[in-house]
Amino acid sequence: MNHTASLYNQYKAAAQKIADVKYANAVLQWDQETYLPSKGAAARATQMATLSELAHGLSTDKKLGELLLELNAAEGLNEREKKNVQLSLEDYQKQEKFSGAFVRQMSEAISTSFHAWIEARKQNDFKVFQPALETLVQLKKEEAEILGYQGHPYNALLNEYEKGVTVQLLDNVFASLTQPLGELLEKAKQLPMVDDSFLHQYFPKQQQWDWGMDLIQQLGFDLEAGRQDIAEHPFTTNFSSQDVRLTTRIDENDFANMTWSCIHEVGHGLYEQGLPDDQYGLPCGEYASLSIHESQSRLWENSAGRSKGFWQHYYPVLQTYFPEPLKHVDVHRFYQSINKIQPSLIRTEADELTYHFHVNIRYSIEKEIISGHCSVADIPGIWNEQYRKFLGVIVPDDKQGCLQDVHWSHGSFGYFPTYSLGSFYAAQFFEQAKKEIPGLEQQISVGNTMELLNWLRNAVHQYGRMYTSEELCRKITGEGLNVAHFMNYLSNKIDTLK
Amino acid sequence: MNHTASLYNQYKAAAQKIADVKYANAVLQWDQETYLPSKGAAARATQMATLSELAHGLSTDKKLGELLLELNAAEGLNEREKKNVQLSLEDYQKQEKFSGAFVRQMSEAISTSFHAWIEARKQNDFKVFQPALETLVQLKKEEAEILGYQGHPYNALLNEYEKGVTVQLLDNVFASLTQPLGELLEKAKQLPMVDDSFLHQYFPKQQQWDWGMDLIQQLGFDLEAGRQDIAEHPFTTNFSSQDVRLTTRIDENDFANMTWSCIHEVGHGLYEQGLPDDQYGLPCGEYASLSIHESQSRLWENSAGRSKGFWQHYYPVLQTYFPEPLKHVDVHRFYQSINKIQPSLIRTEADELTYHFHVNIRYSIEKEIISGHCSVADIPGIWNEQYRKFLGVIVPDDKQGCLQDVHWSHGSFGYFPTYSLGSFYAAQFFEQAKKEIPGLEQQISVGNTMELLNWLRNAVHQYGRMYTSEELCRKITGEGLNVAHFMNYLSNKIDTLK
Repeated sequence: MNHTASLYNQYKAAAQKIADVKYANAVLQWDQETYLPSKGAAARATQMATLSELAHGLSTDKKLGELLLELNAAEGLNEREKKNVQLSLEDYQKQEKFSGAFVRQMSEAISTSFHAWIEARKQNDFKVFQPALETLVQLKKEEAEILGYQGHPYNALLNEYEKGVTVQLLDNVFASLTQPLGELLEKAKQLPMVDDSFLHQYFPKQQQWDWGMDLIQQLGFDLEAGRQDIAEHPFTTNFSSQDVRLTTRIDENDFANMTWSCIHEVGHGLYEQGLPDDQYGLPCGEYASLSIHESQSRLWENSAGRSKGFWQHYYPVLQTYFPEPLKHVDVHRFYQSINKIQPSLIRTEADELTYHFHVNIRYSIEKEIISGHCSVADIPGIWNEQYRKFLGVIVPDDKQGCLQDVHWSHGSFGYFPTYSLGSFYAAQFFEQAKKEIPGLEQQISVGNTMELLNWLRNAVHQYGRMYTSEELCRKITGEGLNVAHFMNYLSNKIDTLK
Repeated sequence: MNHTASLYNQYKAAAQKIADVKYANAVLQWDQETYLPSKGAAARATQMATLSELAHGLSTDKKLGELLLELNAAEGLNEREKKNVQLSLEDYQKQEKFSGAFVRQMSEAISTSFHAWIEARKQNDFKVFQPALETLVQLKKEEAEILGYQGHPYNALLNEYEKGVTVQLLDNVFASLTQPLGELLEKAKQLPMVDDSFLHQYFPKQQQWDWGMDLIQQLGFDLEAGRQDIAEHPFTTNFSSQDVRLTTRIDENDFANMTWSCIHEVGHGLYEQGLPDDQYGLPCGEYASLSIHESQSRLWENSAGRSKGFWQHYYPVLQTYFPEPLKHVDVHRFYQSINKIQPSLIRTEADELTYHFHVNIRYSIEKEIISGHCSVADIPGIWNEQYRKFLGVIVPDDKQGCLQDVHWSHGSFGYFPTYSLGSFYAAQFFEQAKKEIPGLEQQISVGNTMELLNWLRNAVHQYGRMYTSEELCRKITGEGLNVAHFMNYLSNKIDTLK
């Protein structure tokens, strides 16, 4: 073995050891959100803080830094190896800015904040969450300063989730969308009223579960390399590409809730199962970015999962699971109902159009919080005002308002915008898939989504972090992010809802 | 704060950080045995090996060693603090003997071995397990040499599970038991034949689960500080005294399997929930020894859970869960059936008497394997021969023979003897409890086991590792381990089975 190959192996072993600790922490987090008994929360918080601190210690080991610098200057690595080294060096240099104590403090503040949020939701009172969130926001501001930024301090946090994205870019995107989305919303209001009350009949838990498990397998999720469990707030996580954990929730009086949570999460899960297993613990074994991750879930949830063809195949299957509630509902009414466009209070239940107003509201609040232009105490007031302004809805209480999302309690500031970006990428990728896969929509309408999955594996999954979102988008579609594809998609969708 | 108090706090923080990593590893292990998808096994093995190595690194940190030496010589600690320091120093000096590489190698060998054992059981062929077990046995022999011992090398491994126990002591115990147990077995053979076939009717999964969950709660298990899940091989683990995980298994054609697994595991679980929470991560927050742990499970499983009084209360409850299969079975026939004494193949399903022949066989094989007097390849032959000799049964295949227990695949050599010791302690403790709790058996017969639990909390649980098994036994009963109590218990039991 030559010197460079030997160095690369040392680097690989070190990176994989760091990944082992991070994935172990992800197991603890998964357990916390699925199975942890309530009194176990305190010890779990310190256990997770300790693993965070240890992972940080390994990630900032001076020897690793020297190794990365030497490898980064070395000849003889292939393209993927070069990229791994380059990204690991970037990660190293970022991690190096933080002290172990800061990392531990952040992890503990997040745990405290998460439990305060749970309690605040129980009491339906933002004030119960406020002190913990204030502490966390203070730490996030420090994090921005430690990381450094150009322009707006929120840019530092945005970059943690989506490299290269800035306030300026997002302001432009959302500004350019507000008017056309508003116009489409007006157009949607002209659609005939559809009676979707059947979605709120009684759909028994066990049948929903069986149906969801059936569906995720039909869509290609490998249950030998993953599983699905129940969580209050559905999410997907993985501990390797061979161990991907979906979660979902069941509301017996709301059919849509679990079904689209399953299709959404399985989109994330299929991405993670498609990451190259031989790159375990290395950048090219990780997802490209949050917006690309979200593009996968949105593509399955919306482009496929809310399409006419999809339900041409699946609606008869669905009726075998729920013969009674769906007895008098034909597939077109079903299709209209699951695509009903209507301003509402809850982001995760929003339609594809108004969804982006929900995101924009959170984005603008986060920006002001991090810059210090508004304080945590102001959140409920601003929230309610913006919901009135953008969506015309009156927020009746905090639980249906600013306490609805888990993200802030996790310290995830800068995360929400990737949801919109992901939707836009999804529309653009799906458009490309239709061009490249002959008869794609026909395939979907007979329940064959395997070619679509293979196309995504090939176009997106196999590369891991090899390309940035923008690079990947260019490679796949020949152009950078172009919101026009999403607007076209939406406009066409509305035309089919008549 | 004075200097000693400050040192003690430093020690406490370091010990708790080590515990965080060990408990995190226990979460990964729990997940491996309950929910892990099959393809996730390889990555999980390296993740667990990495955490083992990190825990070992923290446990052997030179600064911790110096701190412990200084504290051990310091004045001003209370009795429990002194004991914590003393035991941590012992643990430190033991851990120091191992290299991180050895710890990692052992962890990996155990994972490989575990999966080989699973596969060997599938194929019903010990030879599939043999190569992995040979590697592991070689490592266990090295472990014995690294630890050092007097007399038999197996003593080193026994000490890992039960401080102070030796081959000489166990040889004496088992030798002294063989004849009287044989005589009792003869006596039991004179009992009238009891028809226990009703235990093998169809007992639906869900009802068994509900009944088991009901039972563990009735016995005092706090479901806010723990939970129960399904595992192929029932076990109990904990991640703090506030997060205790029981597991069980359900056989729809064997009622006894799950019920006594629940009562056994809840005995372990109640012990762990009773450990002092403010001693998290310190020796006095851990269990005293494996035999004391087993004394708790056996006391609930047998002294309480196979007693007449227990079922006077619970049998009518049980009949509400399974009205059909138990319709024509009266409580005395039920009692006789669940106490039927009959030589059999499977240890975990053995009665209270023949159980100890199963343990003795494993003990004698382990001893010879570690000393090198017999080889791994010899195991099936010796196993089958000994089952014929001690129990008079013919072992039809490896799955019902030497592949039945998970322990060797976990590298747990020296563990089995604690099962017998635990049974003997259980009988002795229960005898004492009857003396100290007026009307204990009467209480049990009306479903009140809370006073018994409180007695155990007070006599055993609260102390953690403060006392060795032998010290604790003397403190509770006024004498050291005395097998006569167990023999009396068994003899009396046989008299009630007529």
